[in-house]
Amino acid sequence: MTKIFDTICSISTPQGLGALAVLRVSGKNAFEIVAKLFNTPDEFKSLPANLVKRFNIDDDDTLIDQVLAVKFATPKSYTGEDIVEITCHGSKYIQQKIIELLLQNGARLAKAGEFSMRAFLNGKLDLPQAEAVADLIDSQSEVAHKLAINQLKGNFSNRIKTLRTQFVELAALMELELDFSEENVEFANRSTLNNLLQTLKDEVTQLTESFKLGNVLKTGIPVAIIGKPNVGKSTLLNCLLDDDRAIVSHIPGTTRDTIEDNFTINGTNFRFIDTAGIRLTNDEIETFGIDRTFKAIDKAEIILYMIDISETSLEDVEKELEFFENEIDFIHKKLIIVANKIDQLNELPRHFSDWNEYDIAFVSAKRKVNIEAIRELLTQHIDKHNIADTTLLTNARHYDIMLKIENEINTIEDGYTHNLPTDLIVVHINSILNLLGEITGEITTDEILETIFSRFCIGK
Amino acid sequence: MTKIFDTICSISTPQGLGALAVLRVSGKNAFEIVAKLFNTPDEFKSLPANLVKRFNIDDDDTLIDQVLAVKFATPKSYTGEDIVEITCHGSKYIQQKIIELLLQNGARLAKAGEFSMRAFLNGKLDLPQAEAVADLIDSQSEVAHKLAINQLKGNFSNRIKTLRTQFVELAALMELELDFSEENVEFANRSTLNNLLQTLKDEVTQLTESFKLGNVLKTGIPVAIIGKPNVGKSTLLNCLLDDDRAIVSHIPGTTRDTIEDNFTINGTNFRFIDTAGIRLTNDEIETFGIDRTFKAIDKAEIILYMIDISETSLEDVEKELEFFENEIDFIHKKLIIVANKIDQLNELPRHFSDWNEYDIAFVSAKRKVNIEAIRELLTQHIDKHNIADTTLLTNARHYDIMLKIENEINTIEDGYTHNLPTDLIVVHINSILNLLGEITGEITTDEILETIFSRFCIGK
Repeated sequence: MTKIFDTICSISTPQGLGALAVLRVSGKNAFEIVAKLFNTPDEFKSLPANLVKRFNIDDDDTLIDQVLAVKFATPKSYTGEDIVEITCHGSKYIQQKIIELLLQNGARLAKAGEFSMRAFLNGKLDLPQAEAVADLIDSQSEVAHKLAINQLKGNFSNRIKTLRTQFVELAALMELELDFSEENVEFANRSTLNNLLQTLKDEVTQLTESFKLGNVLKTGIPVAIIGKPNVGKSTLLNCLLDDDRAIVSHIPGTTRDTIEDNFTINGTNFRFIDTAGIRLTNDEIETFGIDRTFKAIDKAEIILYMIDISETSLEDVEKELEFFENEIDFIHKKLIIVANKIDQLNELPRHFSDWNEYDIAFVSAKRKVNIEAIRELLTQHIDKHNIADTTLLTNARHYDIMLKIENEINTIEDGYTHNLPTDLIVVHINSILNLLGEITGEITTDEILETIFSRFCIGK
Repeated sequence: MTKIFDTICSISTPQGLGALAVLRVSGKNAFEIVAKLFNTPDEFKSLPANLVKRFNIDDDDTLIDQVLAVKFATPKSYTGEDIVEITCHGSKYIQQKIIELLLQNGARLAKAGEFSMRAFLNGKLDLPQAEAVADLIDSQSEVAHKLAINQLKGNFSNRIKTLRTQFVELAALMELELDFSEENVEFANRSTLNNLLQTLKDEVTQLTESFKLGNVLKTGIPVAIIGKPNVGKSTLLNCLLDDDRAIVSHIPGTTRDTIEDNFTINGTNFRFIDTAGIRLTNDEIETFGIDRTFKAIDKAEIILYMIDISETSLEDVEKELEFFENEIDFIHKKLIIVANKIDQLNELPRHFSDWNEYDIAFVSAKRKVNIEAIRELLTQHIDKHNIADTTLLTNARHYDIMLKIENEINTIEDGYTHNLPTDLIVVHINSILNLLGEITGEITTDEILETIFSRFCIGK
């Protein structure tokens, strides 16, 4: 992989109406190119690194903007190269004009993620850390943010490095056994080897299994609202979404531009899954579309099963639940019963309030009574402290590689129990070491890098 | 007006997906408040002004983000107060979290334009300059940008100051004449006074008249496309808009989010006015909706009158034009005839090509032939150099005040020719001096300022 880089530039702040915009230029000619934009180039050339100064950008003697510029000198910069950061007024015309001038003077437009790719190639970040930068920018909830920060701090990379050391140790023990077996001497460390193999298998399994949680925490825990027509599903949905919007919008200038059906409770992101298939609109549950509904429900981690408590008996509910349980695999889902329309009752029916088979919230979605109970039940099983301390797999690329490692380790275990020649087994350990290197970026190709960084936003 | 300011904060970059975001804090406790966010507060406190340094923002020992921070110390800052600029990752969660921490530590959210209002109140900018900052941020075309830059450089303010000096001189001459008249001596400087009065009247009229051009250049020159059904109006419209989009979108990451029907040619912004009323969809021109159509046409500065040259005779066109001329005041409009569908002819009809009564472009909108001719005719009468050198009134507030000044000057002229007592006339000159002070901001009220700055975007 070549490391001779040209100079790239890009707008690093979002498009739209704003007071300021930031442009970045990175590469070995960054200082020289940017100097040509200013009407006092020598002043810029002699500007020490990290010092912000005001400059005028002229084009044919026409003032384009008065900007702030700062140099970050190699290697002490994000990319590890010389970087200039230009803060200009947030006008679209000004931003485009500055980009045009940069291009005319020898910079080229950065591809998505190219700044971070250079940071990786220059050894400023390993691959999972660079990937965490993209996740950090995308993070919309406290939990997603925490996952990204952990990965950025290197927690995940360290875990992979530890795994790597352990696999190297496993290979060493295997080679050792090979020597012993040739000499027909009892291998002293067989139990150490067994234990290590088992530990590694457990760790890898734990990581692959953590992906489901890691991924839903990142993208939002999928929630389905089900129940008969007119029990108040839409009202509840709007209630949960509206409250969230009200919370978010208390900071002027910030608007929600996320997916319509996402909301955050106590820092955890939830996502209503395609409700079109879920809101049963016919009275009979066995109707057209039921398969699609069950498929949608199947994607949910949490099911809010809603009933109209003013006209439903405990027997009705138990019958319906029984029906659902035949159709849906509830074992890996959390079921919350939402008993709606309590405003239409004088008191809670005793048989319901004594009921403790399921989590149940007695609410009035219409009058916004006790919605807090639903929020509490939704977040109850998410232990945020736990998330911060555990390494979760959140990245599909890492997950794919980890699944391959899981396969390899199964092959190793198999071979070991069936007394396969050790050198045949060691091949698979080497394969695992390569796969781990793919995660951290020690082993990679231009093509893989292009794919990874193309998912980044422009300007990072 | 009080000048004891609290400390304000705001996100200064647009919302949306981006690599970076910039937050600003301004006020006398800005340094102190921001220091509390960092896990190395002393390092921040001892940081010299204008030096960028990396800091960690923690909340309860959880890392929120690694940011760059820089201090701008009073009075050398945009607002004239102590300012901290924080550049963080562009995650919505991170931005909100930092704002929350700033609020918890004693800052409050800035209102729209509050940074610029402080810059004005602290004497860093006069009012037209502050207003130009908002125009600069809004500017989407070269011409709009040029108008804003000129005003920001103080060209307009200087013209107002010159006017002010001249009115003071006029008042002095009037007072002098008053003295002479009491002594029944012939006034020596009557012609000087007459000339000055006339000059001032001309200047004020020139300014009020420049508003129409200034305003359309800022918001886009209104263009109407008219013509019978099926002559190709929509095709031409799309043709002009598409080309513009194609030009704009050559910079990745920049998107057009402006009004659907705006386009730029050679740096000048054009705006198609509500075409719903203009595209005559019935064969007969005298039909329902014709009034609405003419009203819409009336708003246009330029009319593209489109004909299908493959089936229209010169007589038809002349008849139609005659009809239009009876209905529309063409004197202040530019009429461009677009002879469409030349691809359906073997050669141009001679009577048309010899015709030089009107500007005419022979095109095929469908095959995109000769569209350049329309572009050229559209921009022909806009002299950009001229715009740069002339002071144009672009701001509705300035225009309103200038109209009042125009009234006052007419009253003065009237009084002077009718030999009204000079002290009665001088009252009106004083009124003009006050009005000029309202433009520059020397005379103003909190209420007026609130109104002016509320039109700004958040964070500026």
